[in-house]
Amino acid sequence: MPNPTAAMLVIGDEILSGRTRDANMHHLAQELVKVGIDLKEVRVVSDDAPAIVAAVRALSEAFDTVITSGGIGPTHDDITADCIAEAFGRSIDVRDDARQLLADAYGARGVELTEARLRMARIPDGAALIDNPVSTAPGFTVENVHVMAGVPAVFQAMVASVLPTLTGGTPLLSQSLRVMRPESEIASPLRDLAAEFSDLSFGSYPFQTDGVYGANVVVRGQDGARLDAAMVKLSEVFPDA
Amino acid sequence: MPNPTAAMLVIGDEILSGRTRDANMHHLAQELVKVGIDLKEVRVVSDDAPAIVAAVRALSEAFDTVITSGGIGPTHDDITADCIAEAFGRSIDVRDDARQLLADAYGARGVELTEARLRMARIPDGAALIDNPVSTAPGFTVENVHVMAGVPAVFQAMVASVLPTLTGGTPLLSQSLRVMRPESEIASPLRDLAAEFSDLSFGSYPFQTDGVYGANVVVRGQDGARLDAAMVKLSEVFPDA
Repeated sequence: MPNPTAAMLVIGDEILSGRTRDANMHHLAQELVKVGIDLKEVRVVSDDAPAIVAAVRALSEAFDTVITSGGIGPTHDDITADCIAEAFGRSIDVRDDARQLLADAYGARGVELTEARLRMARIPDGAALIDNPVSTAPGFTVENVHVMAGVPAVFQAMVASVLPTLTGGTPLLSQSLRVMRPESEIASPLRDLAAEFSDLSFGSYPFQTDGVYGANVVVRGQDGARLDAAMVKLSEVFPDA
Repeated sequence: MPNPTAAMLVIGDEILSGRTRDANMHHLAQELVKVGIDLKEVRVVSDDAPAIVAAVRALSEAFDTVITSGGIGPTHDDITADCIAEAFGRSIDVRDDARQLLADAYGARGVELTEARLRMARIPDGAALIDNPVSTAPGFTVENVHVMAGVPAVFQAMVASVLPTLTGGTPLLSQSLRVMRPESEIASPLRDLAAEFSDLSFGSYPFQTDGVYGANVVVRGQDGARLDAAMVKLSEVFPDA
């Protein structure tokens, strides 16, 4: 049975303008592979409502699970929650359970729950809240879309909350061999190996270090014994690796 | 007049599987902002022909310029050139000019131009070649899609070749202020400022350092004098920044 699929939607001008380097994509990719969910696509869109709504709809239809990051804070450019509501035709307002979470957290610090802070309690109708152990303001889940914060510490905590609730698959195993030969020399034997082990996937990732060309050959699959067999063959074909 | 728009398509299982952290997106974003081209969307898809073809078509239609990275090497998993040809309904084969480039480069090193290496001379009909000063194998341009290598050094060289040929816009200027207050406290005055300077965009990017909450407020726009005026106001509103 094929593994469940996932897509990620990164929302934020700060990445598209080159100001910030995204850190959440790499984290999510690594977490999903461990539980056998295949991350099939990532999109990064700007803080633009029509772009966000269109991407949410397209990804939600095409993949089993969608995880978004960014745009759920208290400022005027945080429009993700409203876009999710629009994408699914749901109403959105400050919700009592989310308001209570914020009221308790701010109350404990003797801080007023202002109108701006209340923005973070705007949750689409029928959504389930995602716990935020770092800074209280919750994420939420609507249908197969999990809406998380962009701040890496909060994003990672939310991923940790949600992942155990998702149906995983067979974790993808991988082994790699570093071959110190240009990719063009390994291409032909590698294609033959890929044909022989058609249940595995063979990737070749070239690099260049101090003028020397090489490639990391990565073999991926769900059956550890087959992977071992392929690696033995690979080492025979490239004995100098 | 609005700036020209661009999208990026990153092709590669190695990023979606969490093995590699993408470096090209950040580089391209920084280069485009300098010449006034607005990077509107980035998609990352796996080494899967239907996914690549669909993404190329969608992005090529929606944006002025598309830049792809990855999948143009000599190995069997390098399928980008064939997918581009399919996306635009063009034929593809080893092309004489590309073959000559490779023959010269390998010949100079006394290395045989094997069938695998010749794969890198497969260029869609009518495409223009993009120079590769690092490792010879060229990228190419079909209509508004510029196809580049995934290896960062080569990608960067190809971006440098292509950027001067694109029509730029007014470079987006930005200034930022580091405010050591939680985002929820600055949200309300920031919204008022954004309304007053409606020709500028105001972004707020929260962070947390040693338990202290703060936010980088970034003001972006094309008019330097307006930007300066907004920063003066911003400093008045947040004198403790």
